[in-house]
Amino acid sequence: MAEFQPKNPAYAERVRASFDRQKAMSLLGANLVRLAPGECEIHLPFKPELTQQHGYFHGGIIGTIADSAGGYAGFTLMPEDSSVLTVEYKMNLLAPGDGDLLIARARVLKSGRTLVVTQVDAAVVKGGRETLCATLLQTLITMHGRSDL
Amino acid sequence: MAEFQPKNPAYAERVRASFDRQKAMSLLGANLVRLAPGECEIHLPFKPELTQQHGYFHGGIIGTIADSAGGYAGFTLMPEDSSVLTVEYKMNLLAPGDGDLLIARARVLKSGRTLVVTQVDAAVVKGGRETLCATLLQTLITMHGRSDL
Amino acid sequence: MAEFQPKNPAYAERVRASFDRQKAMSLLGANLVRLAPGECEIHLPFKPELTQQHGYFHGGIIGTIADSAGGYAGFTLMPEDSSVLTVEYKMNLLAPGDGDLLIARARVLKSGRTLVVTQVDAAVVKGGRETLCATLLQTLITMHGRSDL
Amino acid sequence: MAEFQPKNPAYAERVRASFDRQKAMSLLGANLVRLAPGECEIHLPFKPELTQQHGYFHGGIIGTIADSAGGYAGFTLMPEDSSVLTVEYKMNLLAPGDGDLLIARARVLKSGRTLVVTQVDAAVVKGGRETLCATLLQTLITMHGRSDL
Repeated sequence: MAEFQPKNPAYAERVRASFDRQKAMSLLGANLVRLAPGECEIHLPFKPELTQQHGYFHGGIIGTIADSAGGYAGFTLMPEDSSVLTVEYKMNLLAPGDGDLLIARARVLKSGRTLVVTQVDAAVVKGGRETLCATLLQTLITMHGRSDL
Repeated sequence: MAEFQPKNPAYAERVRASFDRQKAMSLLGANLVRLAPGECEIHLPFKPELTQQHGYFHGGIIGTIADSAGGYAGFTLMPEDSSVLTVEYKMNLLAPGDGDLLIARARVLKSGRTLVVTQVDAAVVKGGRETLCATLLQTLITMHGRSDL
Repeated sequence: MAEFQPKNPAYAERVRASFDRQKAMSLLGANLVRLAPGECEIHLPFKPELTQQHGYFHGGIIGTIADSAGGYAGFTLMPEDSSVLTVEYKMNLLAPGDGDLLIARARVLKSGRTLVVTQVDAAVVKGGRETLCATLLQTLITMHGRSDL
Repeated sequence: MAEFQPKNPAYAERVRASFDRQKAMSLLGANLVRLAPGECEIHLPFKPELTQQHGYFHGGIIGTIADSAGGYAGFTLMPEDSSVLTVEYKMNLLAPGDGDLLIARARVLKSGRTLVVTQVDAAVVKGGRETLCATLLQTLITMHGRSDL
């Protein structure tokens, strides 16, 4: 896997501040638990308010957590005077979102000047055992000259 | 556009009951406003809890509403003794989710025995003016012999 | 549907010259049959060399024709001193590619300064009757300051 | 990574016979070079007939090779009396297809009774050095009771 050098030494503070401004993350109850250059991990504890019709994590909610994880994995590598937007993502659901905790792990596949491509794996944990429940490919755009605030 | 004949005459009641069991829809505040064979429209009024870091509808939340709209457009056409699951979707974000209301309109492109493909357009309404903010292609699977309850 | 104003008045000549340089198009036997601002249509007559294991148009070949159609729909709107690259596409196959002719019709959904999003429908014609066999969502990037030659 | 047990002991012969019937593969000049349960690798030597307007491998051609690699990775795991079809794929292009050889390596992420999900990485080799040029997520369907012939 590629090793990345962050252009902004304060990348972690910037990502955490941006994550804290994503009010959707607190509505859902998500926590940013790990950051590294080109990587981000977000956890979402289960609650009944997050479910689809069969009582599992809603696929769209899985996508929301994965979208943020991918976006912030990319944002760790972007220069100081910039902001990040999602261009598109595609998610395959591989197993029901049946668990006590959802974990989204994102890593950058390609970091270009303008576009960044990430891969995100989402797993559910039940009884201490992890099951991969979704995988995503995501494209981000670096908005140069636009502060994230 | 294709015209579809629902296999289950009670398709609307079944979809509405399933939507009401999706607790994620009530957490977000979404309303199912229109159903027809192969079609579904869901509305989501803006609230600050639904936003990303710039104060607009979070892209993942747009995807969540669109995923449900597509799933229920497909479910209108599925036989009585069946359930619906999302296989995958891909969403392109076309404009910021900046508005007072988000509208997701889904229609079935292809209805096969096992798989159903839908397209979903998502628009934001601001000052009475609609702007297309996202478009999705989605694949669903009919779970034959499995009640949705 | 949006109406688009081409920035390059010689957009059609430029697209045709670029299409003629795509040697893959002549290997397959594809013809560029229609161009308009934000639109492109490419035809591919059937030949056995284009098939998958059941004797139909190979899905990847359908994707190749659709990729070029989408790329050139986008290129009609790009400024003079620029070039076009595909960022990504997603294709759903809706019916077997069983026909004498494949038609890919692309149109631009969103034309931004850097990114362009297109939708492409691909149909097969058999006995004079068209069947939609695939649909794509595609993202393009405008390479400013880089001639297409 | 998951380890898979093929249901059909003659999986390799069946895949090779199917690949040989894909006439698009011989038009392009592709070779099936490796098969294992849930895995497939296809090589495509460069020739000018495979290029886009800048003289690199056409993105659609990369997608065609990757689509076949993913389809055959999945087909290694399918039961005897079955056939494989691509439902959809999504490809991100990560670098120009600039090389003497294109390599597509596919592996199964999830093998269900009906649906199979694969990931495919495509690389170009130039001067002995590999560069990842595309990555795909693909969904396949097992056509039970339909011979591939």
